[in-house]
Amino acid sequence: MVAKENVKALVFDVFGTVVDWRGSVIRELTAFGNAKGLGVDWTRFADDWRGLYQPAMEEVRSGRRSWAILDDLHRESLKKLLERNGVEGLSTHEIEHLTRIWHRLDPWPDAIEGLLRLKRRYIISTLSNGNTGLLVRMAKRAGLPWDLILGAESARAYKPMPECYLRNAALLNLEPQEVMLVAAHNDDLAAAASVGYRTAFVLRPTEYGPDQKKDLAASRDWDVVTDSFTGVADAMGCPRR
Amino acid sequence: MVAKENVKALVFDVFGTVVDWRGSVIRELTAFGNAKGLGVDWTRFADDWRGLYQPAMEEVRSGRRSWAILDDLHRESLKKLLERNGVEGLSTHEIEHLTRIWHRLDPWPDAIEGLLRLKRRYIISTLSNGNTGLLVRMAKRAGLPWDLILGAESARAYKPMPECYLRNAALLNLEPQEVMLVAAHNDDLAAAASVGYRTAFVLRPTEYGPDQKKDLAASRDWDVVTDSFTGVADAMGCPRR
Repeated sequence: MVAKENVKALVFDVFGTVVDWRGSVIRELTAFGNAKGLGVDWTRFADDWRGLYQPAMEEVRSGRRSWAILDDLHRESLKKLLERNGVEGLSTHEIEHLTRIWHRLDPWPDAIEGLLRLKRRYIISTLSNGNTGLLVRMAKRAGLPWDLILGAESARAYKPMPECYLRNAALLNLEPQEVMLVAAHNDDLAAAASVGYRTAFVLRPTEYGPDQKKDLAASRDWDVVTDSFTGVADAMGCPRR
Repeated sequence: MVAKENVKALVFDVFGTVVDWRGSVIRELTAFGNAKGLGVDWTRFADDWRGLYQPAMEEVRSGRRSWAILDDLHRESLKKLLERNGVEGLSTHEIEHLTRIWHRLDPWPDAIEGLLRLKRRYIISTLSNGNTGLLVRMAKRAGLPWDLILGAESARAYKPMPECYLRNAALLNLEPQEVMLVAAHNDDLAAAASVGYRTAFVLRPTEYGPDQKKDLAASRDWDVVTDSFTGVADAMGCPRR
């Protein structure tokens, strides 16, 4: 357990790791669609919306487009999908309301308890591709007790670019080896480990719904492997009160 | 009170407004000096250290030197003053310990109570020339319940440059008119107001010690004028529990 001893900060992937984006997005879209009398398969819509997430960020990562925050990428993807599903005539206010569904995601049941335990001993932060304004509103609504908000926007680089991990460690006055990424995604952990971060894998087997195919197990011997944030707290020596 | 109605976030100057930097720095320097048997006037040393703060930042603001965080400016100023006071032979560890006195400042007695009340209704953040790592460690030690950490480092521009206020409002997805700066310094409030921020002046008449000459009154009709953070909470409609 030597690798964990020098950890000063735990930083968390958010979508899927801290919050159940899929359940939350389906619930809000369905409520909106019912109120408007729209006949759309909102479960598929939610999956398609998330499906446009990586391609949209890749435009920025590749340099083909200049820096853009996730709210803007979400809004663009939403408009494409509304058109594809034949939904027309929504107001600017309604488009913004739907775009900001991503500000109103609910945490997994173990998340807050685990974070509160970890916060007593470590700096705890987001390390998300979500923008700062999104993440702080999500935190206030859900009661996520972050010490600060870090991520793609504070680094102006989307994960899994190494700059995202390195610049955010520097913002904390820490060496990469003093920071642990907590994530439900092996590829995020691999990118973090490659620049020196410590790693904790948290299994979230229903992030992508009942038929999830990936991230059903740790792909490597990460420093911590568990299935909840209370499990991370146990592994990192943060006792229950 | 129309001006206050659309405020969504309150952002706080930190040194002097939230924390008593002078009392804290004198106390730590004196303890260090006594332990080392050093004969230095530490009150004057603290005032001289703070005196080098604006000139050091001005090198960055003017573009004469490239971006540097406040920890680095504090360390450089410290070394100058140690030499000037004939203190020699400190270890790298000791220099770092002293530099980080600025991470360990104590809040004014009303600060935490006022912040907790404001946090229930508004996003609350730092808006400080301190770097992110400094501010988050100060917050954890002192129990300052920020929702996030913003400031010169998140904008890569020191106050009172307009970029510092504008970029941090953008990080919050807010218009400047939706952000209120809380500060004990009229010049900080003037710069914020000039880009559209709302303003709250909090009198801190002993920030610079018993002979303080400036900021002993509001120089303009700021949106809020008070002498404590609980006074800000009262003015912003945040009740006691």
